[in-house]
Amino acid sequence: MNVAPIKTRIFKEREDLTAFITAYIPKIKDGTVLAVTSKIVALSEGRTATPKNKKEKERIIRAESEWAVESYPGWWLTIKDGTFVINAGVDDSNAGGKVVLLPKDSFRVAAKIRTELKKRYRIKRLGVIITDSRVAPLRKGVFGMALGYAGIRGLRDYRGKPDIFGRTLEVTEVGVADSLAAAAALVMGEGKERQPLSIIENAPVEFCEKVNRKELRIPRKDDIYRPLFRTTKRREKL
Amino acid sequence: MNVAPIKTRIFKEREDLTAFITAYIPKIKDGTVLAVTSKIVALSEGRTATPKNKKEKERIIRAESEWAVESYPGWWLTIKDGTFVINAGVDDSNAGGKVVLLPKDSFRVAAKIRTELKKRYRIKRLGVIITDSRVAPLRKGVFGMALGYAGIRGLRDYRGKPDIFGRTLEVTEVGVADSLAAAAALVMGEGKERQPLSIIENAPVEFCEKVNRKELRIPRKDDIYRPLFRTTKRREKL
Repeated sequence: MNVAPIKTRIFKEREDLTAFITAYIPKIKDGTVLAVTSKIVALSEGRTATPKNKKEKERIIRAESEWAVESYPGWWLTIKDGTFVINAGVDDSNAGGKVVLLPKDSFRVAAKIRTELKKRYRIKRLGVIITDSRVAPLRKGVFGMALGYAGIRGLRDYRGKPDIFGRTLEVTEVGVADSLAAAAALVMGEGKERQPLSIIENAPVEFCEKVNRKELRIPRKDDIYRPLFRTTKRREKL
Repeated sequence: MNVAPIKTRIFKEREDLTAFITAYIPKIKDGTVLAVTSKIVALSEGRTATPKNKKEKERIIRAESEWAVESYPGWWLTIKDGTFVINAGVDDSNAGGKVVLLPKDSFRVAAKIRTELKKRYRIKRLGVIITDSRVAPLRKGVFGMALGYAGIRGLRDYRGKPDIFGRTLEVTEVGVADSLAAAAALVMGEGKERQPLSIIENAPVEFCEKVNRKELRIPRKDDIYRPLFRTTKRREKL
């Protein structure tokens, strides 16, 4: 698997995403996955704001999230689109004074870009992943995750398949889209690299025409982490 | 960045890890990162058990963890070595009837392998990552993380560095070791692939001689997820 970042100029608000991508990527091989950072997707949608103070930023964060709790002054643990994210993704790094929100619908954007790029590059199998940066509990360091995607299966399902001893695997599903996003985000960087795109070739992915946008969601009651979601005192102290 | 899995025969319990690696990887370029799945590290250490029943497996899981709570019958959310892991990593897939525990000390093993391989391959800059599979809350799909590593910095620190507009970044540290592990685990697979090793070239890593084994740990009180660790009813219902 090869993962290569693409250096670009600074993306401007309300710019056309597909035109920007094709300006920097003249050719793409069939069977490629293109990673696009959520920041330029949000900018293309004009998803920015200019909060005058902390209170206003807090209002935006709350409006953007399905669940929010202030962990530290100004730092919120939130759930947005079913996943944990700091401050609902409202971010002031690389935003030129404004704050940039998360894209409105990353799955829809991924599908749109994919349709346009497939036509432009005259290829059939193309994956598009919109990446975002997240943190895991009890762990330092941000890593990429797939906010939305098109053209690939988000999971590789091993359930019912044999292991190396022929024993049937019970539960393993591999987070393909998230793992690709982690690799892509690593090479794209988080600072002044200006590498909002990344080309992934020879990845172990299954290409497909239609994706299930709820594929990576897990109901809270089915989540192994559910003991943390309970608010009662019955849980053993962590 | 290039990430290539290495196909091998089945690794046997108590085998020598370095001999196994060099049998399948005759040459390594200076500046490479080698990923090794925790399963063969644990097997090389003889970290296996044969629990006779569920009760015995539960005893092992509890003994292996720093914190454990049963999320579903037989499925425990645990903390081991400071990170969340299902069933303390006690796993019966690809274990041939036994259960395989996590390695005793992945940082120590990574350092040992690195020293031996540097000598063998006559190279100076070599990273070694012991990978394990984890899940994130509210998210389907396992992904790789770095259980231990040697020869590379686990984090890339952007704090105090400028963003594309020259604004100083406040908090971003990139989880380099975990992101590399995610990429490596994806190409290695979780089923009957028999690819317990992976070679990562041209990765954006900083090589170093000594690593801080607590580098990726975050005290619970400093974690953005800390509202989930509270057991009181004061928290808003999730």
